[in-house]
Formats: sequence, structure tokens, C-alpha cells
Amino acid sequence: MTADSDRDNISRRQLLAAVGAGAAAAVTVGAGALPASSVGSWDAQADVLIVGSGAAGVSAAIEARAAGAGVLLLESLSRLGGASAMSGGVVYAGGGTALQKALGVDDNVEAMYDFLSRAGAPHPPLDKIQLYCEQSAAHFDWLVAQGVPYLEKFSAAKGLPMGDESLYFSGTELAWPAWELARPAPRGHVPGVTGMNGGRRLMQALLARAESVGVEMRTAVVARRLVTESDGRVAGLRVEADGQVQHIKARRGLLLAAGGFIHNREMLRQYAPELYDCSVPWGNAGDQGDGINMGIAVGAAALRMHQGFAIAPIYPPENVLSGILVNESGQRFISEESYHGVLGDAIAFHQRGRAWLITDQRSSFAGHQDNFLPVARGNSIGEIAARLDLPKGALQHTVAYYNRHAANGDDPMFRKSRDYLRPLQGPPYTAWDLSVEKAFFAAHTFGGLHTTIDGAVVNSFGEQIPGLYAAGRTTAGLPMAPYIASGLSVGDCTFFGRRAGRAAAGATS
Amino acid sequence: MTADSDRDNISRRQLLAAVGAGAAAAVTVGAGALPASSVGSWDAQADVLIVGSGAAGVSAAIEARAAGAGVLLLESLSRLGGASAMSGGVVYAGGGTALQKALGVDDNVEAMYDFLSRAGAPHPPLDKIQLYCEQSAAHFDWLVAQGVPYLEKFSAAKGLPMGDESLYFSGTELAWPAWELARPAPRGHVPGVTGMNGGRRLMQALLARAESVGVEMRTAVVARRLVTESDGRVAGLRVEADGQVQHIKARRGLLLAAGGFIHNREMLRQYAPELYDCSVPWGNAGDQGDGINMGIAVGAAALRMHQGFAIAPIYPPENVLSGILVNESGQRFISEESYHGVLGDAIAFHQRGRAWLITDQRSSFAGHQDNFLPVARGNSIGEIAARLDLPKGALQHTVAYYNRHAANGDDPMFRKSRDYLRPLQGPPYTAWDLSVEKAFFAAHTFGGLHTTIDGAVVNSFGEQIPGLYAAGRTTAGLPMAPYIASGLSVGDCTFFGRRAGRAAAGATS
Repeated sequence: MTADSDRDNISRRQLLAAVGAGAAAAVTVGAGALPASSVGSWDAQADVLIVGSGAAGVSAAIEARAAGAGVLLLESLSRLGGASAMSGGVVYAGGGTALQKALGVDDNVEAMYDFLSRAGAPHPPLDKIQLYCEQSAAHFDWLVAQGVPYLEKFSAAKGLPMGDESLYFSGTELAWPAWELARPAPRGHVPGVTGMNGGRRLMQALLARAESVGVEMRTAVVARRLVTESDGRVAGLRVEADGQVQHIKARRGLLLAAGGFIHNREMLRQYAPELYDCSVPWGNAGDQGDGINMGIAVGAAALRMHQGFAIAPIYPPENVLSGILVNESGQRFISEESYHGVLGDAIAFHQRGRAWLITDQRSSFAGHQDNFLPVARGNSIGEIAARLDLPKGALQHTVAYYNRHAANGDDPMFRKSRDYLRPLQGPPYTAWDLSVEKAFFAAHTFGGLHTTIDGAVVNSFGEQIPGLYAAGRTTAGLPMAPYIASGLSVGDCTFFGRRAGRAAAGATS
Repeated sequence: MTADSDRDNISRRQLLAAVGAGAAAAVTVGAGALPASSVGSWDAQADVLIVGSGAAGVSAAIEARAAGAGVLLLESLSRLGGASAMSGGVVYAGGGTALQKALGVDDNVEAMYDFLSRAGAPHPPLDKIQLYCEQSAAHFDWLVAQGVPYLEKFSAAKGLPMGDESLYFSGTELAWPAWELARPAPRGHVPGVTGMNGGRRLMQALLARAESVGVEMRTAVVARRLVTESDGRVAGLRVEADGQVQHIKARRGLLLAAGGFIHNREMLRQYAPELYDCSVPWGNAGDQGDGINMGIAVGAAALRMHQGFAIAPIYPPENVLSGILVNESGQRFISEESYHGVLGDAIAFHQRGRAWLITDQRSSFAGHQDNFLPVARGNSIGEIAARLDLPKGALQHTVAYYNRHAANGDDPMFRKSRDYLRPLQGPPYTAWDLSVEKAFFAAHTFGGLHTTIDGAVVNSFGEQIPGLYAAGRTTAGLPMAPYIASGLSVGDCTFFGRRAGRAAAGATS
């Protein structure tokens, strides 16, 4: 229990490094919001002023226009579409959507509600979940009406369809314990285009519609601070464009839809240290937390700031799911067929960021893939365990238990389905590194401003901040940790974005 | 995979209940802060105005007086002392304090820094940790100078001394993996009084000192809102006292030291759902989150709002540590000799709130205790496993592995020390319920306002909010999840409270 001199030296260096960090961290004094009285004149005005051009901002813009408001939408980058355009474009919808019905899928609102309220985070916001489930089929109709193309084709494969199928099981519905908590149905609705192009296609449709209904959109305009009246009402925005500071007034409402903060390292370290460690920040370059920070600066409450999407996409290929996933103790800790997001959450948040996938010959990744590196290979489980330096005999113990039951078609611990259940046998065995720092471990943030079901931003006393609205990953919405299904984020962006847009325009929902 | 009708009925009821909840959640519109222009005249004034009379507020008050400021301290309840007076009164101090030296304990700043920076939460605030370690010995001298009595006696027992010893191992230093990360030393400094009276004695001394140096203290004054100037500076406070609304001006600085939010159910549900489920909210009745909410309302950033102390105090008696702790899969997941706070964190945050302690005859709780209920008893491990409905054969597997190695004095998985390591043998076996809802599972909150090392409150842009300071559990300080040692919270309150008090008085540290 005595420190050796090497460790003392290291700690002394760390100490010195920390001194530097401390000195650099001196903070300036400033006001988080600008008083309207200090704004001489407004450079521009709009009924509804929207920050961000992803699915949330653009859905809001379309609906604000429909409610009769003039809409100005600002994008900090030179290209419209936000992180939504980079996504799979999946919208989680159910309870009997037109597409589900056309494909003969049996679903209902209660089953969807059960899944969203019971299979994920503890104490989720039931008001948002309930509304989302009840109006999900109608929301899907709206997406179709905006011109998002869906094909009446179902994909039975695990993972985002790479063909042009538009419906699939996008979440963890079929993995235990989800199937015990809610009746499964496929609810991933994705534009009928091949490859990973659903998000681009979705945003193409929404942006075209926004343009056709007269939403004014400006790129390369960076929002800096909110402008507030002395009574707390949000009156407008300070922006920078072409190197100039300007002030834009929001006559009816200002709506923040500027994404999350996966590309702001300092925010990540402070708010979401587990995501800080994930190897692949997966968002749009604009995901700097600007919308969230502007909202907090005027008194908004922010919820679930530590949570996020932390995903280890081990499938496809599905054959690897016949391997087993183990932690630093050499124990299994989850059903390997769990949805990527559930599996990644377990590793990043509950297993200190470390895990390995152990495969045999049949369950091994075939050929070259560079998402997960093989870090041990051997002809026996004991060899693998020794190379990983797992606790003596633990992995052997885990495999013996797993194999004995798998041989009977049984997985007492995590009830893996028979599709993927068989004893590990047939060397060589391989251990694939699934640690957050070394594997392909994609992450983005879920935390954001607290909003009502109508997108009004709420302060720390539970009161609406007058004039301020928000949607998408700038808010704490349906995506929570664990992330239980693809499509919840874009679904939340479009659905609650629409409601926020209507509310900002002064319409009652 | 089809839902049975019972489940459908339940979910429908839940749905209806949720409708009601949604309706009740309608929010009002309001400003989080009061504009100074709306305050007609101030009812009272002070150089430094402090909210909260726990260790943080009172330490701040003493130092603000020493810096020449007139100090008014407000307490919402009728009794002074806050949660600190209910605590064990332990201050985590080290690096060679006078008491450590007197008792021949070898410690240094680097070892303490290693422990605090490496054995707990990922990416902790190194600036605060470093300063705390470097000035820890001097801070202990200050406590002594305020009249806090310490006796030159060391306790080797695990847990808060019930005699009058003043130094002990208050944290997880001796449990793996901590001992591998940092050289252990006893750093729990507790007033030399018998029983659980350290907190009361500590606050007695600090309150007496505050009174003797001329701090004005008023009880039953509830802080409602901060008053701000148009440039964002915090100018004062709206309070309620004797049913009257009053406004009090803070000439130099306003300091929030109003504790955490363990008694605010709605905040818990939204910010810290894992703590919401813990059976025993363990704080002062004033821990309603008022200070945090007033800070957020003027634009402060709040950090680590989901984190907290979640403690399952299984020892004393130490003999139970020879039992094993298992999760829903029948697996061990931590060294049973870990500090309470580390063990509780693992259960509450990483094992979905459920665990059992499995004991044999020698490791069983003797006689009556009602913190943990025996939920299964049997003459074989198989009987226990069946009663707990653990996965088939899993617990037997765990015990067989554990026993085989324990017989050799070895715990490959969690390196439990030989003091507590021996095979489980000798029926009857008992399973004690350690779930957060059914066991005695005490909780309080760690999340709070983001502050500099001098207690200045920081907004979401990393800028100081002029005139606003905070300390203690109203801030995000040294206590993080997992909580690795008793004394970090009161240590943080007193140490950073002092600095905040000086800064609020306008002194440079």
C-alpha cells in the first residue's frame, strides 16, 4: 500500500499540470443576457425568430408560418440541415401509423406508451411521452404531407435498412427486458432511400417545404446572446454575421433549436464526463451548446445534462451477437442483442467505459472492420482471459455457465433470443475491444432546456420564460439514457418542434 | 411476446393517471429574478448578505467579518445549523494536519490529491481538488482556532467513531481499487465527542464564533428571489418573514449557502431520479433547492444535478462484510468492504437500485436491526437463489467461485482484504434486501451552482455573475458520485465557504 516513486512522480506532474489549468481558468465577469434598453435599434425583425436549421427548427418554422407568422430562421453554418441531415432520418412512430397499417403491423398507443415509459430511463417525462404516443400516427401523416417519401416495405434485418425499406424494429423492443415490459412493434419509420441517406432526404423535404411556404432562412449567422426586457421577456437576439454584430427582434417568440453540445469539449467535461471519453463525437459542427447556454443565461432550467447517446454499433453483422459481452470482471452484464444505444449506455455509464466482445469462429467479425479491434486471440478461453488480464478464472466461469445453458436454448441471465444463442465453441476465440476510448464509440448529448409540451422554456421556479421557446436537442426531450430506439431524437425534434413553432407564433395547440 | 390483459389494464390506468399529471403541470409565466427598478426601497442592507446557516454559510460569515464586512445571515427555519448540524461533523483533511502529525500518521498532499482526483468521479474539478489538498492542513488549524474540539485519539474501527476519537479512515481508501490508486491515510477529522454528535458540536463552535465576531443572524426568514440590476449584477434579495415581503440589499456581495434539494420531490424527480427512489431523504428540512433555483434563475450554470450521496450503511457490524453483495443477475459487483457511499452509489446508480447481501451464520447481522430486512433464509445457497428468483444457478456459481478463491485468501474479482475474506459456509444463509426503496437507503444531493475556487457563481458562458457567490451543497463542489469519503461535504462547505465569504466581502484570497 505504499506509493512507488514512479507514481509519486506522475502525481507530482499531474499536480503541476493542474496548477496551469487552474491559472488558465480565471473567468471574466459579464451579464448572460443583454438588456433591451442597451440595444439602440433593431437591425431586423420577425414575428418568430428561430435559431437552427435542423429538423426541430425547420418543423417549427413550417408550423409557425401555417399559424400566420412571418418567420426568420438563422443557421450558424453555411449549410442548412443540422445534425438531422447527417442522421439516419428515422422517426419513431407508432400506435397504428398509415405505414404500419399498410404493412399489416399490429400496434397501439398503449403498447408504444408502455415501451417509452418503462423500457428506458427512470421517471421519464410522462406528459411528453403520452402526447407523443397519442399523436404519433397523425404526426407521421404530417411528415408524408410535407413530402417525405416512405415506401411500403418492411425490413426484418437488425439495424437501419440499407435498402429502401421504410419500416423496421429500430430499437430494443425485441431484446429482454423490453419485450417483457411492452408488446413489441416495429416503429422505425425511415425515408425510402438506399444507404445512410434518410436524414438528408428528410431534411430535403422539410427545407423545400419551409422555403415554399415563405420561411426566410439565413446561413452563417451566429447567435450570441438573448436580449431581454426588464420584466424577463425575451425580446430578441444578438448575432454575428459577416463579422458584424446585429440585433434582431422577435415580435412574437424566439425559438432555440440549435442542437446539443457534443462538439463543445469544455461543456462535455463539466456536464457529461462519460460522453467526453467516447471516441467519436457524432453531431453537426454547430453542436456547440449555444442554444442551451443562451437559454440558461436567461434563467432556464436544464435537465439531464449528463445524459447522451453512447453507441457501440457491433451489428451488423448479426452473427457477432452469438458472442458474449463481458466487463472488467469477466462477467456478462446485458443481452448482446440489445439495441446499440442500450448496449453502449451500459458500457459508457455503468461499466466504467470498458467491455469486450468475446467471439468464437462462427461469431467472429469476418474479414476487415476497423470499428472494434481484436485485442486477444487464442485457442482457449483461458488464453483470452490471461491476455485481457481478467480476474483469475472469471471468464472461464462465465463461459462455462453460459455454454451449459445455451446448449439447452436457455439464457437465464439475460434471456437472449434463440436466434443468437448457442454455446461458444470452436476456436480461435477473439476478444474485441469495446471500450469507449478505443472502439468506434459514437456519442451525442441529450441534456437541454426544460420545456413544456408546447416548447415554452421553463425557469427554475417552474414558470415559463416569456417569449422563449425551444425544441430538439437544445431541450431535454424524449431521448434519454439509455437511448432505447433510433428515431426518438428526430421524432422528438419534428413533433415537439412543430408544437413549439405554433406556440411561438401565438397559436394555441 | 403478447401483452396479457392484466398488463394492458395497468398501462391504461397509468395512461389515465398521466393525463391528470399533465393537466396539473400547467405552468405560469414569470420572471426568475426581480428587477432592482421594481424594488421601491430596501427594508434592510448589509455588506454581505448570506442565505443559509449551515457550515458553508457560517464559515463564510466568519471570514467576511474578518475581511471587514458587515454580515447579515438569514436562515429559513427557526433553528440555526443546517444539515451540517445533523451530520457526523467529519471534515476530510490531510497532507499532514496537526492531528495527523500528533498521531504519527504519514500523509502528504500528493497522496491526498491522488485519492480525490483518481478514486471517484471521472473528470473531477482539479482546480478545487488541488487547492483543497494544498491548504487542507491550514484549514484544519483554522477549525481548531474557531474552537472545534479535536482529541488526539485514533479509531481503527470501520465507520464513524462512536467514542471520542477524532481521526479515522472515513472513506474507501483501504478498499480496492482505491488503495491501488493512492496511498491511503486516515483523513476523517471529527470533533472529539461521543455518539453521532460531531456535526452539532462543529456547528456549536462555528455559530458561537460567528456571534462573537458580530455576525447578525436572523431565523425564519425565507429567501424568495434575487434582485438584479439591468446589467445583471445581483443587488439583493426578496424575502418573506413574519408573513411580510421584504427586500434586503447586499452592498458588496450576496452569498447563497442554502443547502441542496433532497426535500424537494419535484426537483429530485426531474434532476436526480435515482435519488428520488432512495428510501430516506437525509437532509435538513430546509434542503428545498431554493438557493440553487435562485441562482439558476439569474443565469447560473448548475453542474452534476443528477449526482448525490446514496448510502447503504451495512457496517457496523464489520462481520457482515464477510458476506457477499450480489445484483439481480446473482453476480458480485463491488468489494463489500467499500465505503458506504461507494457501495450505495453502485447499487443506486449502476445496479438499477437493487442488490442483496448474502450472509452465512458468522456473517449474519446478529439480533434485531431494521435497516435491512431478511428476505430469504435457507440451508443452502440454492434455496436462497430460488426465493430471490435469481437466474437459474447464477448465485450458486458466484458462491462457488468466491468460496474456492476465498479459501486461498484470494478475491480475484474485487480484492477484498483478508480481514473480511473467507468462504461462505455454515447455514443458515440469509439474503438481506439492499434495494434503494426497501432498505435504509439515505440520500442527499450533490448538484448545484457552478462556482470558481473563490465561490463566485459562474454563468453558462463561463463568466462570473457580478455580486453573486455560493458555497456548500448549493454549489457543485468536492462531493461527487461516487462519494468516496465522509467529510468531503462538510470539508467543502467550510473550506470553500470561507473563500466565498472573503470574496463576497471584496477581499482577495
